[in-house]
Amino acid sequence: MALARVHNFSISLDGFGTGEPQSLESPFGHAGERLHEWMFATRYWDDDGQSGMDAVYASRHDVGFGAEIMGANKFGPPGWQDDPDWRGWWGDDPPFHTPTYVLTHRPRPSVEMEGGTTFHFLDASPADALATAMEAAGGLDVRLGGGASMIRDFVRAGLVDHMHVVQVPIVLGRGVRLWDGLDALEERFDIEAVSSPSGVTHLTMTRKHAP
Amino acid sequence: MALARVHNFSISLDGFGTGEPQSLESPFGHAGERLHEWMFATRYWDDDGQSGMDAVYASRHDVGFGAEIMGANKFGPPGWQDDPDWRGWWGDDPPFHTPTYVLTHRPRPSVEMEGGTTFHFLDASPADALATAMEAAGGLDVRLGGGASMIRDFVRAGLVDHMHVVQVPIVLGRGVRLWDGLDALEERFDIEAVSSPSGVTHLTMTRKHAP
Ligand SMILES: NC(=O)c1ccc[n+]([C@@H]2O[C@H](COP(=O)([O-])OP(=O)(O)OC[C@H]3O[C@@H](n4cnc5c(N)ncnc54)[C@H](OP(=O)(O)O)[C@@H]3O)[C@@H](O)[C@H]2O)c1
Ligand SMILES: NC(=O)c1ccc[n+]([C@@H]2O[C@H](COP(=O)([O-])OP(=O)(O)OC[C@H]3O[C@@H](n4cnc5c(N)ncnc54)[C@H](OP(=O)(O)O)[C@@H]3O)[C@@H](O)[C@H]2O)c1
Repeated sequence: MALARVHNFSISLDGFGTGEPQSLESPFGHAGERLHEWMFATRYWDDDGQSGMDAVYASRHDVGFGAEIMGANKFGPPGWQDDPDWRGWWGDDPPFHTPTYVLTHRPRPSVEMEGGTTFHFLDASPADALATAMEAAGGLDVRLGGGASMIRDFVRAGLVDHMHVVQVPIVLGRGVRLWDGLDALEERFDIEAVSSPSGVTHLTMTRKHAP
Repeated sequence: MALARVHNFSISLDGFGTGEPQSLESPFGHAGERLHEWMFATRYWDDDGQSGMDAVYASRHDVGFGAEIMGANKFGPPGWQDDPDWRGWWGDDPPFHTPTYVLTHRPRPSVEMEGGTTFHFLDASPADALATAMEAAGGLDVRLGGGASMIRDFVRAGLVDHMHVVQVPIVLGRGVRLWDGLDALEERFDIEAVSSPSGVTHLTMTRKHAP
């Protein structure tokens, strides 16, 4: 059965998936690029990068997906909805290569990009959005792309099968926290923590099956 | 030089050092004993326990200390200051075996226990309390015993040399959070994360020396 999975979602020790304020110049606010340096150092990101544990985990991001769902704040900086020409951060050939659903309360017509990515804009509940994306994914999995707010919503609605979260040894103090409202997550997920020689810790959470 | 060190301080994935509400029946509130099960399973705690990585880390708690400082809420449940007979959770022979300073805004006379522990009650700034404890420790280190509030205060005052924090794979959602107000901790400490086969992750933080 096709799964809903989160991959390479990076948080600080204190659980923030982004700093603040988010802006065109600083998509991650005061966090800058520090949440993702572990990934930039891998061959997954850079041909000259390392191929150790971090690269192994990171590469799972691209395997087996037929669609992505992301939150409005991943798609663009605050106010992108007022710019009819905004087409995301990723240039003409975004790294999704599948139908990609952007959750927003201000939907607009779909945009077909190069390389197989089409952005669709959805104002829908998490369950309805997932059903739509699953349909489009044609039997492959659906990536839940973040940010933290939409991942939290999907977890709370019981819609997430696997989560890969990367804990980076920095303390951000403010931003959007992944854990808020996820009390007792361990009752619904098997949680594994594996620290990497690079300094980050890979957390994988696998939904428990009914006994 | 003698150091101020934190050992075996356990937190949830979302950073809480205790659940709530704290009470005589449930010192850790809704967290119950879950923050410390990793330690109960070790030979450090139980003669029949395991002697793997968790035991190795845990045993550092007892080595090289000449005094401890703890917060009022570690010493007793809310309201203990109204009970003149309250002498802590630990029976007649508490596991400190040194002078032990309890920070409280309602100090009382010192109490000598068995086994070398004497409780002293201090209403003092973190810096003054540490100076007092260092003096009493006679060249040995001072343990900062927690809870989270007092550790945060001591870190913010720049008084902590080493911290060993154990991250347990549960999400508590509420309680007292270790990380609050510790933004940019990585600028002042080298942070190492090592996951254990038991499922917990040992974080050690070592104060950086001026270059
Ligand atoms: N740490 C990582 O690995 C990682 C990964 C991805 C993204 N990020 C970063 O995380 C930040 C964004 O995260 P975030 O938590 O602020 O926001 P987000 O989850 O990306 O987006 C939340 C927004 O999406 C819209 N939305 C969500 N659910 C909806 C629904 N069911 N129906 C309609 N609209 C819905 C709402 O926007 P409107 O009401 O405005 O339409 C909502 O405010 C960005 O800085 C991004 O770069 C980090
Ligand atoms: N997770 C772990 O490994 C671990 C370790 C130790 C303890 N704990 C738990 O953590 C909880 C306690 O933590 P907490 O953060 O609530 O409180 P805490 O740090 O133990 O105590 C804070 C209290 O100590 C007093 N205090 C602190 N600094 C002071 C100063 N400079 N001068 C005078 N008084 C001062 C104040 O109490 P008053 O104003 O009331 O006097 C303050 O409210 C308990 O549940 C305990 O069992 C957990």
